[in-house]
Amino acid sequence: MRDNRPILLVVGVMLTLVGLLMAIPAAIDLAVANPDWQVFLVAGFLTSFVGAALALANRGGRELSLQQAFVLTTALWVVLPAFAALPFAFCELEMSYTDSFFEAMSGLTTTGSTVISGLDVAPPGILMWRALLQWLGGIGIIVTAVAVLPMLRIGGMQLFRMESSEREKALPRAAQISLVIAVIYLALSTLCALAYRLAGMPLFEAVAHAMTTIATGGFSTYDASIGFFDSPLIDAIATVFMIVGSLPFLLYFRAVRGEPLSLFADTQVRWFFGILATVIATMSVWLVVTDAMAPGAALRYASFNVVSIVTGTGYATIDYGLWGAFPVTLFFFVMLIGGCAGSTSCGIKVFRFQILYATGMTQMRRLLQPHGVFVPMFNRHPVPESVADSVMSFFFLFVLSYALLALALTFVGLDLITALSGAASALANVGPGLGEIIGPAGNFAALPDPAKWLLSAGMLLGRLELFTVLVMFTPGFWRA
Amino acid sequence: MRDNRPILLVVGVMLTLVGLLMAIPAAIDLAVANPDWQVFLVAGFLTSFVGAALALANRGGRELSLQQAFVLTTALWVVLPAFAALPFAFCELEMSYTDSFFEAMSGLTTTGSTVISGLDVAPPGILMWRALLQWLGGIGIIVTAVAVLPMLRIGGMQLFRMESSEREKALPRAAQISLVIAVIYLALSTLCALAYRLAGMPLFEAVAHAMTTIATGGFSTYDASIGFFDSPLIDAIATVFMIVGSLPFLLYFRAVRGEPLSLFADTQVRWFFGILATVIATMSVWLVVTDAMAPGAALRYASFNVVSIVTGTGYATIDYGLWGAFPVTLFFFVMLIGGCAGSTSCGIKVFRFQILYATGMTQMRRLLQPHGVFVPMFNRHPVPESVADSVMSFFFLFVLSYALLALALTFVGLDLITALSGAASALANVGPGLGEIIGPAGNFAALPDPAKWLLSAGMLLGRLELFTVLVMFTPGFWRA
Repeated sequence: MRDNRPILLVVGVMLTLVGLLMAIPAAIDLAVANPDWQVFLVAGFLTSFVGAALALANRGGRELSLQQAFVLTTALWVVLPAFAALPFAFCELEMSYTDSFFEAMSGLTTTGSTVISGLDVAPPGILMWRALLQWLGGIGIIVTAVAVLPMLRIGGMQLFRMESSEREKALPRAAQISLVIAVIYLALSTLCALAYRLAGMPLFEAVAHAMTTIATGGFSTYDASIGFFDSPLIDAIATVFMIVGSLPFLLYFRAVRGEPLSLFADTQVRWFFGILATVIATMSVWLVVTDAMAPGAALRYASFNVVSIVTGTGYATIDYGLWGAFPVTLFFFVMLIGGCAGSTSCGIKVFRFQILYATGMTQMRRLLQPHGVFVPMFNRHPVPESVADSVMSFFFLFVLSYALLALALTFVGLDLITALSGAASALANVGPGLGEIIGPAGNFAALPDPAKWLLSAGMLLGRLELFTVLVMFTPGFWRA
Repeated sequence: MRDNRPILLVVGVMLTLVGLLMAIPAAIDLAVANPDWQVFLVAGFLTSFVGAALALANRGGRELSLQQAFVLTTALWVVLPAFAALPFAFCELEMSYTDSFFEAMSGLTTTGSTVISGLDVAPPGILMWRALLQWLGGIGIIVTAVAVLPMLRIGGMQLFRMESSEREKALPRAAQISLVIAVIYLALSTLCALAYRLAGMPLFEAVAHAMTTIATGGFSTYDASIGFFDSPLIDAIATVFMIVGSLPFLLYFRAVRGEPLSLFADTQVRWFFGILATVIATMSVWLVVTDAMAPGAALRYASFNVVSIVTGTGYATIDYGLWGAFPVTLFFFVMLIGGCAGSTSCGIKVFRFQILYATGMTQMRRLLQPHGVFVPMFNRHPVPESVADSVMSFFFLFVLSYALLALALTFVGLDLITALSGAASALANVGPGLGEIIGPAGNFAALPDPAKWLLSAGMLLGRLELFTVLVMFTPGFWRA
C-alpha cells in the first residue's frame, strides 16, 4: 500500500492552522457581543481537532513523491475550503452548505465572487473571516507558485525555478524564501491598511480591505464594494495595492536582498504595466468620447475597474456593465489576462502571453526563412522548448476548460452571458461576471446549486494552474 | 527592384477565369429575359479584360519565391472578391459596394453569411453567381490546402506534404493531384445535384444547392435556407454531402487510386465522426428531454443543424437560436471546430485538436515522469516538434484574432452576442452567428459598414489559416 502519511500530515497541519485562525473572528464577534462568536469557537475547535488528529496520526512518513505533491496541493485547496465553510453555514446568515463552500472557495482562491448580500449589516466576525480567507489564500498561492509549481513544472512555471536544481538544497532554500516573502506580504498588507486608514476608512474596514486588496481577492465589507466610500483617494490606494499584489513576489524578495532594480528590469513587469496602460487609456478615451464622462472621472473609473479586473481582484466602484458593448467586451477579454507569475493574481498570466507571443513570432519568421535559426526569448533568455510546449498546452487546456465549464453552466440553467462570463471569472479567479445576475452590481446567490459547485471547481482549477488538478485524471496517475 | 510578375500573372489568369465564369449567370438571366444579363456580361468583360491584360503584361517572370507565395495566396483572395462583387453592385438588387464585397468574400471563402434578403424572388442569375462563387471557392481552397499550404508550412499543414520533398518533382505532382481532385469535386457535386433533383428539388435549385453543399458554403436560393423544402430526405442528402465536403479530399484521391480504406483508417476522419456523433446525440437528447420534441424530429433537426455548423456550411432548417442557452452555447463552441484538413470546410480543424490533445496529454505524462520519453502521435506517427509548435501557435493566434475581431466589432457598434458570435462565424467561415440580428433566422444586412469590412477581413484571415495573411505584417517581411 502507498504511504499517504506525508499528504495527510500537511493537510492536518494546515487544517489546525485554519481552525486556530477562527479565534480572530471569534474574538471580534465577542467584542461586539454578537452571538456568532460561539459559532467560530465551535467551528474552530472542530477544525483544529480534526486537523491535529490527522497530523498526529500521520507523523513519520517518507518524503513526498512527485505524484503525492500533486495530490497534496489539490487536497489542500479542497479540504481547507470544506472546513473554512463551517462558520458561514452556522452563523446568523444561515447559509446552505453549498453557499458556504462557494464563499469559502471563492475566498481561499482569492476569487471574490460572493453569495452574501447585506454585507453592510453583516456581523464583523464573518466579514473578518472572509477577509482572512482571502489573505491566507493570497500568501498560500504565492508560496505555492514560488516553491511548489516550478518544481512540479506546471504550465511553464519551471521558468521560475530556484537557481539551485539539487532537490536537497532546493527545499530548505524554498522554505527560507517563502518565509521572507511571507514577511514582505505582511508588511505590504500593513502598509495598505495604514494607507486606507489615513485616507479615512475606519480601522476595521481598513484592515479587512487591505487583506483583500493585497491578495487581489476583492471581498468587501459593503455590497457596493469600494464604491461605498466614493473617494478618489481610496480608489487610488486600492489601485496601487492591487498592482502591488499582482507583481512577482520573488522580485520583492530580490529587492529586499539588495537588487531593487530587478523589479523594473523584468520584462514581465513591463508588459504588465504596458497592458494596463493600454487598456486604461482605451477605456478612458471611450468613456470621454462615447459616454461624455469628464476626463478626470473617466481616468479614475477606468483605472480602478480595469486594474480590478485585470488583476482578478474584482472590486467595483461603478456598474461598468452599463458602459456599453465595447467596454463590456473589453472587460470580458482582459479578465483572462491576470497578473504576473508568483503573485496573488490568477488568470493566464502575463509571462504566458509573452511566451505565446514570442513563439508565434518565431513561427512566422521560420515561415519565411525555413533554414534560419530563431529562438523565442523571455526576459532576455532563450525559452527552453519544454517551457514553450508547456505554456502552449496550458493555453489550450485553459480555453478547453473554459468552453466546457461555460457549456456545463448553461446545462444547469444559466443564460449565455452569465455562463460565458461566469466561467471566465471563476477560472481566472476574478470575482464578478457580466450581465444582470452576476455582473459588478449583482451577486452569485441567485444561481442554482449545481452552478455554484461548477464555479467552485472552476476556481480550484484556475487557481492551481489547471495541470495540478487535471493530471490526476490522466490514465495511469493513480497507478504511478 | 523585385520581380512581381509571377504574382500578377497568376492573379491575371484567375481574374480572367472569374470573368469568363460570369457568362454562366449571364446566360441564365438571358434565358429568363432578366435584364441583369447585361450586368454579368459587362462585369465579365471588364474582369476578363483586366485579368487578361495583367496576365499578358506579366509573362516570363521567374519562379515564385517563398515570400511571393504568401503574397500571391492572399492577393488572390482579396482581388477575386473585389471583382466578383461587381455583379452584385450593378444588378437589380442595387447593393452598395460594401455589401457586394461582403457577399463576394462570403461566397469565395465558402462562409455563407449573406446581406441579401428576398432571395426567393431574386433573379436566377445572381443566385447562380452566389452558388458559383462558393463552388469555385471550395475547389480553390482544397487545391490551396493540398498544394500550397503544406509547402508554406502553415499552422501544421506541413503534416500533409506530398511524399516527394524535391521541389522540382513536387510541383508537377501537386498539379496532377489537384487536377484529379478537381475531377472528384465535380463528380461529387454532380452526384449531390442528382440526389437533390431525385428528392424533389427543381433542377436549378438542385444544382445551386449542390454547389454550396459540397463547398460547405451555405448560400441558399431561399431566405428560409434548406428549411424552405421542409423535407427529411433533402435534409438527409444535405447532411451527407456537407460531411462529404468536410473530409480530406486527398483521401478521396487515394481511394480513387486504389486505397479505398484509407479514408476510414484515417484518425482525423474518425475523430471528426466521433465529434459529430457526440454533439448530435447530446443535442438530440436535450431537445427530447427539455423541449419535448419527438425523438425522430429531434434527431433530424439536431443532425442537420449540428453538421451544418460544425462543417461551417451554415444552412439552417430551424431557428435553433430559440432552443435555449445550452444548445446555443454548444453551437457557439462547436462552430470553431470545423472539418478535416484539405477539405472545403474551415475552422480550427480536427487534426489540430488531435495534435493539441496529444501534446497536452504528453505534457501531463511528463509531469509525472520527468525523465520518461513521451511523443505525441498523429495518425500512428510521431508528431514532429515543429508541427506541434506550429499548431499550438496557430491555436493561440486564432484565439487572439478572435478576441481582437470581436472587440473591434463592438467598437463599431455591435452588441456583445452579435460581436462574439459574428467574429467566430467569420473566422471559422461558418455563416450565421447567434442572436436576433445575425442568428440563423437573421441576416447581415443591418450591420454597419465598418462591421462588414471587419467581418470580411475575418473571413479572409480564417480561410487562409491566419499565418498566410499575418506573416505579411511581421517586421522584415517586405524587406526579405
